[in-house]
Amino acid sequence: MRINYIDNLEGWRSGFNFHIPIKVRFSETDMYGHVNNVSPFIYFEEARIDYLQDLGIVTDISNKDSAIIVADLQCDYWKQIYFNEELKLYVKVASAGNTSFDLHYMALKEDDDIVLTGRGRIVHINPQTGQSKPLTEEMKRKML
Amino acid sequence: MRINYIDNLEGWRSGFNFHIPIKVRFSETDMYGHVNNVSPFIYFEEARIDYLQDLGIVTDISNKDSAIIVADLQCDYWKQIYFNEELKLYVKVASAGNTSFDLHYMALKEDDDIVLTGRGRIVHINPQTGQSKPLTEEMKRKML
Amino acid sequence: MRINYIDNLEGWRSGFNFHIPIKVRFSETDMYGHVNNVSPFIYFEEARIDYLQDLGIVTDISNKDSAIIVADLQCDYWKQIYFNEELKLYVKVASAGNTSFDLHYMALKEDDDIVLTGRGRIVHINPQTGQSKPLTEEMKRKML
Amino acid sequence: MRINYIDNLEGWRSGFNFHIPIKVRFSETDMYGHVNNVSPFIYFEEARIDYLQDLGIVTDISNKDSAIIVADLQCDYWKQIYFNEELKLYVKVASAGNTSFDLHYMALKEDDDIVLTGRGRIVHINPQTGQSKPLTEEMKRKML
Repeated sequence: MRINYIDNLEGWRSGFNFHIPIKVRFSETDMYGHVNNVSPFIYFEEARIDYLQDLGIVTDISNKDSAIIVADLQCDYWKQIYFNEELKLYVKVASAGNTSFDLHYMALKEDDDIVLTGRGRIVHINPQTGQSKPLTEEMKRKML
Repeated sequence: MRINYIDNLEGWRSGFNFHIPIKVRFSETDMYGHVNNVSPFIYFEEARIDYLQDLGIVTDISNKDSAIIVADLQCDYWKQIYFNEELKLYVKVASAGNTSFDLHYMALKEDDDIVLTGRGRIVHINPQTGQSKPLTEEMKRKML
Repeated sequence: MRINYIDNLEGWRSGFNFHIPIKVRFSETDMYGHVNNVSPFIYFEEARIDYLQDLGIVTDISNKDSAIIVADLQCDYWKQIYFNEELKLYVKVASAGNTSFDLHYMALKEDDDIVLTGRGRIVHINPQTGQSKPLTEEMKRKML
Repeated sequence: MRINYIDNLEGWRSGFNFHIPIKVRFSETDMYGHVNNVSPFIYFEEARIDYLQDLGIVTDISNKDSAIIVADLQCDYWKQIYFNEELKLYVKVASAGNTSFDLHYMALKEDDDIVLTGRGRIVHINPQTGQSKPLTEEMKRKML
């Protein structure tokens, strides 16, 4: 696998601190007998929201001046995942720019083998205009 | 099959006029090789909303005095359904009471065999209090 | 609420021993701001499979003589459920017949208020013919 | 938007010939009022499978020597998508290598505005070993 958001796998992997447990549901499998390609994005979303809440970066939906949105998402499928497997879904801030930051994702099986990796950009916007706006100093501080 | 919401199957079946097409998606199957037990409720919801829009009974989410909600849902699985099958998903008003009405559902395969039947009660409520309220005369007229 | 599978609510409720935790995912909500009507059936399935595994009643998919299938499912929506709520999803064998048995479901919020109840029949079949067959003595013993 | 799989937007866009219709379902929205970030991957999968069937590149699940799998997927969210919108979901082969090929995706609203773009690599494997193997000449011919 050559994945353009991972330079050095060991270094990249050791940068994660936060994870949530995921137990694969039957409804998340498909007729090929393993987890459907759509399901990892459900896991990424759950991990992302828990992580942003943990960091304190979530923005209130009623806040008219500030919101964060998902600009893109991607997932690399390393190994098949099966019903009832218990995964650890890691997420971290990989980098931050002026108005956006990148989250990286990694899912491990019980034997700590990587089964999924991914990334996606989060953008800070003004929800009234839809335009991007600079990350606040507080946001940046919480990401460090 | 003995199903308590169907008295006479032929009469019951002939009472449907409205249907939508459903093409079974790959993500709706599971590792048993056919459609997952959850997926029919996705189909019922799509048919229900289209039908209520067609009848003109949908209530605007911004209406503070009147809303309709799903009180219960049930589905009987008659036959296995497979990826890529094209179903006809029928829905009808089966009965109406003072504050609620019952929708019935039926899914046919391409050979017109029944694969799913179901029902569920819709209740008219005041969204501010959550209390049920009488169906309006207009609602009743549109259901006939 | 009058629900035909619940005679006496307190007695019915006290009959549950097994439950799994459910944390409501963002993707399980809909534009009405609470959990979509389809999502409880995902929760029921997860609880059902864990419970049947716990009882030892699951049948191996490679077993050519014996399989259990879901014949019907129903759900009563008692209260709205919101993103991030942590539910306890209870399931129990409510009754058993010759070839099938009924599972009942109950979901409680953190304050132990009921938010969902449901039921569904499981049928023992011969997977080669699709015909129902008597529950084994072992199955019945495990259910008691 | 700067998206690394799109060089020239007009040229890229004009390269699509195949599309399927998608009508956004209620269950595909979330509490933010628009389509959940997971749902586009459901649409991509439906388009991908229909397209590969149309090209004649699908491999039979019972084929022990040849299978195609999704190696990665990504989606860029250009605009919010709402319940009941009718999208055109385009898919095309963008490039082919020795053992894999890249599919690109584009979703248009009714006014032909782009709402989603994406890509993902499909790999030809030996399902018994999981190892990649060269695309056949027939596969390559069908892609042109």
